[in-house]
Amino acid sequence: MDRRSVIRNAGLAGVLAAGVAPAVHAQATLRWRCASSFPKSLDTLFGVCDVFAKKVGELSGGKFTITTHAAGELMPAFGVLDGVSNGTIEMANTASYYFFGKDPTYALDCAIPFGLNSRQMTAWVYEGNGMKLLREHFGKVGIVNFAMGNTGVQMGGWFRKEVNSVADLKGLKFRCGGFAGRVLERLGVIPQNIPGGEIYQALEKGTIDAAEWVGPYDDLKLGLNKVAQHYYYPGFWEVGPQLSLYVNQKAFEGLSSEYKAIVECAAAFAHTDMQAKYDARNMPALKTLLGQGAKLHAFPKDVMNAAFKSAMDVYAELNDTNPAWKKIYSDYAAFRKESNLWFNLAEASMDDFMQSQKF
Amino acid sequence: MDRRSVIRNAGLAGVLAAGVAPAVHAQATLRWRCASSFPKSLDTLFGVCDVFAKKVGELSGGKFTITTHAAGELMPAFGVLDGVSNGTIEMANTASYYFFGKDPTYALDCAIPFGLNSRQMTAWVYEGNGMKLLREHFGKVGIVNFAMGNTGVQMGGWFRKEVNSVADLKGLKFRCGGFAGRVLERLGVIPQNIPGGEIYQALEKGTIDAAEWVGPYDDLKLGLNKVAQHYYYPGFWEVGPQLSLYVNQKAFEGLSSEYKAIVECAAAFAHTDMQAKYDARNMPALKTLLGQGAKLHAFPKDVMNAAFKSAMDVYAELNDTNPAWKKIYSDYAAFRKESNLWFNLAEASMDDFMQSQKF
Repeated sequence: MDRRSVIRNAGLAGVLAAGVAPAVHAQATLRWRCASSFPKSLDTLFGVCDVFAKKVGELSGGKFTITTHAAGELMPAFGVLDGVSNGTIEMANTASYYFFGKDPTYALDCAIPFGLNSRQMTAWVYEGNGMKLLREHFGKVGIVNFAMGNTGVQMGGWFRKEVNSVADLKGLKFRCGGFAGRVLERLGVIPQNIPGGEIYQALEKGTIDAAEWVGPYDDLKLGLNKVAQHYYYPGFWEVGPQLSLYVNQKAFEGLSSEYKAIVECAAAFAHTDMQAKYDARNMPALKTLLGQGAKLHAFPKDVMNAAFKSAMDVYAELNDTNPAWKKIYSDYAAFRKESNLWFNLAEASMDDFMQSQKF
Repeated sequence: MDRRSVIRNAGLAGVLAAGVAPAVHAQATLRWRCASSFPKSLDTLFGVCDVFAKKVGELSGGKFTITTHAAGELMPAFGVLDGVSNGTIEMANTASYYFFGKDPTYALDCAIPFGLNSRQMTAWVYEGNGMKLLREHFGKVGIVNFAMGNTGVQMGGWFRKEVNSVADLKGLKFRCGGFAGRVLERLGVIPQNIPGGEIYQALEKGTIDAAEWVGPYDDLKLGLNKVAQHYYYPGFWEVGPQLSLYVNQKAFEGLSSEYKAIVECAAAFAHTDMQAKYDARNMPALKTLLGQGAKLHAFPKDVMNAAFKSAMDVYAELNDTNPAWKKIYSDYAAFRKESNLWFNLAEASMDDFMQSQKF
C-alpha cells in the first residue's frame, strides 16, 4: 500500500482514530545540499556523498533530498568548512586534515602521521571518546561532524627516483596531503600543496619530484604511474584517514529526531561502504599498475624511524602550545597505545600467517 | 515541530494542498520480535540486537518497534534459523556457522578456519559478490540475511596444559564453536559442543580439557581464566566471524521501501558498532586477565600449519560433494587470495611498525 492509498482508504481522521502513533511524518519535504572537497571522477571519495544521499532518500521515503556537488561547483574544495560553519550550505563531505592550517586539531578527525589505523579510528570514534571530543571541537564553529568513510592505509606515493635513505629526501619537492608536510619538512622534504587534478601535470613537467595521492584505485585514475615509476608504501602519514560529513549545527538541531537518526545511520552505512570499496578494489588496480611497469618499494627503515621521531616531536610541541590539540591528542594517543598492544596479538599473528600462505 | 503540531497547524488537507509529497508514512505501526542465539549477559553479541532495535525505533519515529529476546526465551539458541524460516518470528540475531550441520555453506556467512579477516569479510559482503551469493543461499529457506557485527580475530582459548606441538592436541577434549571441530578433529582433538553458559563448569570439573569462547572481553565475563590459565592465540578458526541478522523473507517483502531501508541501515550501524566495541574493550579486559594470572601463548607454528592443511583438505572435499558450498567458496577463496596480497603491503608494514614502537 503506498502513501496515497493509505490516505484514500483511511483518511487522516481514521489514522488518528486508530489509536496508534499518528502517521504523519515529523518533518515536511526537505532539500539540502552537500558540497564535496573532491571531484566527481573519484567515485569513492566523492561517491560517498551519493551513497549517503541515496540512503537518506530511501530512509525518508523520498522526502529528505540531498543534492551532491563536486569541489568548485558551489565553493572551492577547501572552502567547505567555512561554508557549513556559516550556513551557506547545510552539509559537506571532506577530509578534516585539510584544515590543519586553521588548527592542527582538525587533523585528529582524519589522519595524523603514525596515527590510528582504519579499525582503530572507527573504534576510537564509535566506542572510545573520539566522537565526543571531536564534536566539542567542531561545535566551536557550529558544525556537527560524522565519520563517513576511511581509505585504509594509503600508499606512500610516486617517486621519479628511488628513495634509499633519509638523505634522498633532502630538497625533494613532494606533493603530499594534509598534516604530512609538517612532519616531512623536518626530514628535508619541500612539501607541495597541489589539488588532485593538477598532480599529473606537475609531476610530468618536473615542477615536483614526487607525489602521493591515495592508493592504487585512485592513483590509477590520475595516471601517476605514467610519470613516476617508483611506488612506495606505506603512506605513514595516512594510516587510517577518516573522511567526514559536516552538518551545520543549527540546521541539524532543527531536524526531527527521525531525520537526525537518518543522517547518522546513512553516514554510518556510507562509512563502512567506503572502506569496503577500497579493500576490494585496490588489489586489482595495483595489478594493473604493476602490469604497466610500476616498481613497488617499501620505505627504508631509517626513513620510517626518522619520520616517526619527527612526528612525535611535532605532537610534543603542539601539546605545549595548543590546549585543544592536547586535550584530544592525549586521549587519541592513549587509545593508540592500547589498541596497538591488542592488534599485535591475535590480529597480527593471524594476518602474518594468512599473508604468508600460497593459496 | 513535532508530529502533533504539524497536524494542528496545517491539517492533512493543508499538507496535501501544498503540493509536496504527502506527509503520511507508508506503513502503520509495526511490532516485530528478534530472537538471539546469545544470552543477555553478553552485551556485545546479544547487545547488538538492542543497538539495532533502538536505531530502527529512532529511524521510524517510534512506529517500528522490535523487541529483543535472549536465547531460550522464545526458542532454543540454535532454533532461530528454523524459527525465522518458518515465520514463527520475524527476525533473529545469530552466528551462521551454528548451522553448519544443516549445510556447511552457512558457515561462509560467518567464519571458516583460515578465512577472511573482519575488514576483508565486510569488503567481500558489501562490495564483492558475498552478499549476492549469500542471499541466494538463504533465499532457499525463506530468509533475507544482513551482516550485523564482527568480533575480529578471536582468541584460541583456555587450556589447562600448554600446547607445544600438534602431538599435545591428541585426545584433547576442546569446546569450540561452529565449523572448527571439522578441522580440529583431524589433528586428534575431540571437539565438544557446549553452550557458553556451561563452559566454566565443564572446564572446572575436568569434563573438558580446554575451551574457546570469543576474546578477552567476553571470556572475562565467563571467568574461564579461573579454571585454565594458558591463553592461546590466534583463534585461527575464527579470523573475522561475522554475526548476522535474519529476516523472514515474506515479512521483509511486505515492508515499505522506507522500512526495508531502515532495517538495512540500522543493521549496518550495528555491524560497525560491534567491531568498534571489541576493538576498544578487548585490551583493557586482557590486562585484567593477565593481572589475574593468565599466561599468554601463541600457538606453535606446527599447529598452525597442520590446521591450515587440514582446513584446505576439508574445503577441497566440500568442493567435490556440495555444489552450493563450491559456488560460494570459490568466490570467497578468490577474494581471500587477492585481499591478502593487498593487506600484506601498506596495511601490514604499517601495523608492524606501529606495533613495534614504544609510545
